[in-house]
Amino acid sequence: MRPIEIYDTTLRDGTQGEGISFSLQDKLNIAKRLGEMGIQFIEGGYPLSNEKDTAFFQEVRKLDLGDAKVCAFGMTRRRSMKAADDPGMKALLAAETPVCTMVGKSWDFQATEVLGATLDENLAMIGESVAFLKQQRDVIFDAEHFFDGWKANPDYAMKTLDAAVQGGAGWVVLCDTNGGTLPEEVAMAVAKVKELFKDRSVVVGIHCHNDSELAVANSLAAVDAGADQVQGTINGIGERCGNVDLISVIANLAIKKKGYQVLGGRPLTQLTELSRFVYETANLQWRNGQPFVGQSAFAHKGGMHVHAINKAASTYEHIDPAVVGNERRILVSELSGRSNIIALTSKDNLQDDKELMNRILAEVVRLENQGYQFESAGASFDLLVKRLAGTFTAHFETIKYRIVAGDRDAQHADGFAEAIVKLQVGEEMWFDAAEGHGPVNALDAALRKALQGTYPELAEMRLLDFKVRVVDSSAGTAAHIRVNIESGDSNDSWGTIGVSENIIEASWKALVDAFEYKLHKSDSGA
Amino acid sequence: MRPIEIYDTTLRDGTQGEGISFSLQDKLNIAKRLGEMGIQFIEGGYPLSNEKDTAFFQEVRKLDLGDAKVCAFGMTRRRSMKAADDPGMKALLAAETPVCTMVGKSWDFQATEVLGATLDENLAMIGESVAFLKQQRDVIFDAEHFFDGWKANPDYAMKTLDAAVQGGAGWVVLCDTNGGTLPEEVAMAVAKVKELFKDRSVVVGIHCHNDSELAVANSLAAVDAGADQVQGTINGIGERCGNVDLISVIANLAIKKKGYQVLGGRPLTQLTELSRFVYETANLQWRNGQPFVGQSAFAHKGGMHVHAINKAASTYEHIDPAVVGNERRILVSELSGRSNIIALTSKDNLQDDKELMNRILAEVVRLENQGYQFESAGASFDLLVKRLAGTFTAHFETIKYRIVAGDRDAQHADGFAEAIVKLQVGEEMWFDAAEGHGPVNALDAALRKALQGTYPELAEMRLLDFKVRVVDSSAGTAAHIRVNIESGDSNDSWGTIGVSENIIEASWKALVDAFEYKLHKSDSGA
Repeated sequence: MRPIEIYDTTLRDGTQGEGISFSLQDKLNIAKRLGEMGIQFIEGGYPLSNEKDTAFFQEVRKLDLGDAKVCAFGMTRRRSMKAADDPGMKALLAAETPVCTMVGKSWDFQATEVLGATLDENLAMIGESVAFLKQQRDVIFDAEHFFDGWKANPDYAMKTLDAAVQGGAGWVVLCDTNGGTLPEEVAMAVAKVKELFKDRSVVVGIHCHNDSELAVANSLAAVDAGADQVQGTINGIGERCGNVDLISVIANLAIKKKGYQVLGGRPLTQLTELSRFVYETANLQWRNGQPFVGQSAFAHKGGMHVHAINKAASTYEHIDPAVVGNERRILVSELSGRSNIIALTSKDNLQDDKELMNRILAEVVRLENQGYQFESAGASFDLLVKRLAGTFTAHFETIKYRIVAGDRDAQHADGFAEAIVKLQVGEEMWFDAAEGHGPVNALDAALRKALQGTYPELAEMRLLDFKVRVVDSSAGTAAHIRVNIESGDSNDSWGTIGVSENIIEASWKALVDAFEYKLHKSDSGA
Repeated sequence: MRPIEIYDTTLRDGTQGEGISFSLQDKLNIAKRLGEMGIQFIEGGYPLSNEKDTAFFQEVRKLDLGDAKVCAFGMTRRRSMKAADDPGMKALLAAETPVCTMVGKSWDFQATEVLGATLDENLAMIGESVAFLKQQRDVIFDAEHFFDGWKANPDYAMKTLDAAVQGGAGWVVLCDTNGGTLPEEVAMAVAKVKELFKDRSVVVGIHCHNDSELAVANSLAAVDAGADQVQGTINGIGERCGNVDLISVIANLAIKKKGYQVLGGRPLTQLTELSRFVYETANLQWRNGQPFVGQSAFAHKGGMHVHAINKAASTYEHIDPAVVGNERRILVSELSGRSNIIALTSKDNLQDDKELMNRILAEVVRLENQGYQFESAGASFDLLVKRLAGTFTAHFETIKYRIVAGDRDAQHADGFAEAIVKLQVGEEMWFDAAEGHGPVNALDAALRKALQGTYPELAEMRLLDFKVRVVDSSAGTAAHIRVNIESGDSNDSWGTIGVSENIIEASWKALVDAFEYKLHKSDSGA
């Protein structure tokens, strides 16, 4: 088993991604998680670029990161300056990390056009900068644009690596900075570099970007060709199309490829949690379709498949979801069959009641023909099952509602909306009105007003998301409209649905289900 | 240049994706775009699975799809039934498509465990089903779980392909159904299959899923190993982690790999637009980081890069964004970019008026910050330009509107909605009311009532589609809501947009633009 080093740059290259920015505390929290996962190298930032990164390097020393080494990132010294005098070099040392990662130009075109240096000057900048840092630190050399440089001027690209190793770099990392390289090109170049250093103890690494949707394949191809370190980010966050997703790299190396050891052979059961933790910290939506860890990665739709899965999971899953801490989900869908329903109701042990199963299936089919889709409305489905099973108890009866809305006036630049609701709660009749930003918001406010006296637990319920979809769009404004509402409280979230030709009626149905589900939850002490 | 066939299954396998559901009109619109792109095969659906797909196959015959062949998808005959008697087989022929795509089991485990058939029975089911269809159609055989089958029992997996070809299949497509196969495994298996059929004229195809984030690499590896057809979906929509993204496959084959021809050598400048059209039709958010076509795919952040880009674009871009119809974005000044505006206004020859261009750009930026997106609202954009250019003449002034709506009553099972509108048309004031299926439908009806006397040409205007998107969904029911309306008349169709916290106000804005655009069209005799 050849051990492969995992080098995470979520905190540095990852923050180049559009809309990504971490607070100091965010960065410390993520570093802690990365250490717990057994990731060997954590690139914390670019000391010269901002104070937050400087502060990070001070604070991170106080954390227990296990075997992980923190790396400070910087560039070669400036053309017209001694390494010892260069502010960037000084900042790298001031970060007091065990490792410094230094990026330099490997593409002749870049050295001359971007740095304005001669080819020899660029080699001297690399060699002297590494040598200066090496006096006090281990040094990783990131060869920027290595593959473009290797295509344009292979001899010179190799010379830049050689200069770094002569200077004392223990690692040379080949960067596909533009993400435009193909796996076969990566394999060939890595093999040549391995050949160059076959008599010297240098670790060859790979750093890929996903601009051609080949970052994972390129990283694996590099490892097969002899690379012993893979650099990337959690969830593949990063500039443009992102860096390679370390989640997929780790899972493929540990589970699918043969002969490699990652994370010291630790289990990967924390992988899904790590992915979601980074999304939450970055305040990004999870990517449902993300390989291995996405919410849909093991979600099954369509009766034929689900039927097969109940016979043999491996038939439709490439790995056991539990291995990466993920789980299987069965979706009720337009293509659903009895097996979906049985799987979904199994937790209530209703599946043996054949007659009930038939009634549920018939009702789901009837509703799906109207445009309902329960795959993102599990709460409405649960209420449907309760109703058909006779275990549903209404917490309130809706007598009627009214909406009055109109265009902008003195108080309402976005137009006004007012709702009136009449509800029966137990013996009492409630008649309440509320204003809102729009009709749905107004109905939500009026419902709360009418119910909160009886059910104070509704105070902690919030509406998290609101989706509208035209089911039969060809019918224009007379089409059926599907409204999905995602609601949540302190420890849970649930989806409800309503369908109608009338968007207000559809929203009302979804709202009423959302409130009923919350009240059933509290009954069962959830 | 070896030509590679592109087979699109967005309309069938793509709809297995979580939350994906297309209306009949959506499917027809997408099929039309795929035909325009030069995609050779368009899988329209699964005739037996639902009426929508059956209707699609009738309607699609009326469209001009260029050289594209429409394919109907189905399974091998049932175990205990003659092909001629099998409802699925009959449904495939009833679809009256030039090509039938039939999926069968290639994994011995699946044949016995899932179908409950003997290995020989499964071979007979494949052979007889293909032979039955081949009497009237070209037949593509999709070998489900081919790679799993090939690992478990290579001889049997090969026999299933052989049975299909003996039956008359012109294509055998190797499906990585679970998405768990590695590129080196794909390459080896494809080479073996090519060897098997070296003396017979059979096209070998590849069908990949992205569960290991290797779908694109696997598809390219198959082509390098001799596959001549790639199956996938636009934007990689599909079950679990999705099918392979044809956008990336097409771009890689046409731009990066050498020696292959895709889409008959057509330019790829429509690729970005196609991707966004499919997202909009599916009512999905664009994936900013999507390779080649994402909004961030050529977005640059960080002074160093931007500085370098100004020196030499190729330094930080793996291809010229224009080749795929995308554009570079420098994330200092967010949003659309002048080039976009100039391109959009060029047909009016306004682009030389620098001062006007600046005002348009400023207004677009202001509106985009509110949640407007003009990609699918060209008519609203044209009206915006007319207003700023001073060439807009209002055909009516909206004085006010009111909506009254409520739940089901004697006449209205879906609840009722009534609209009142007050308009000034020339010197006349119109005050009209109308009922509707919902508030938007009622506003539409009231607008027509008030305008039709003055503008009889509105009689031929219809609302074709109506889409609602929550822009800032985290704000729940108080979020900003974007309404897109697609309208049409006998010879044209146009999109308009409205954004507001209030869904009724947003719909009203989009409706008013739709009517104004139609009236401007008639003025110019369009």
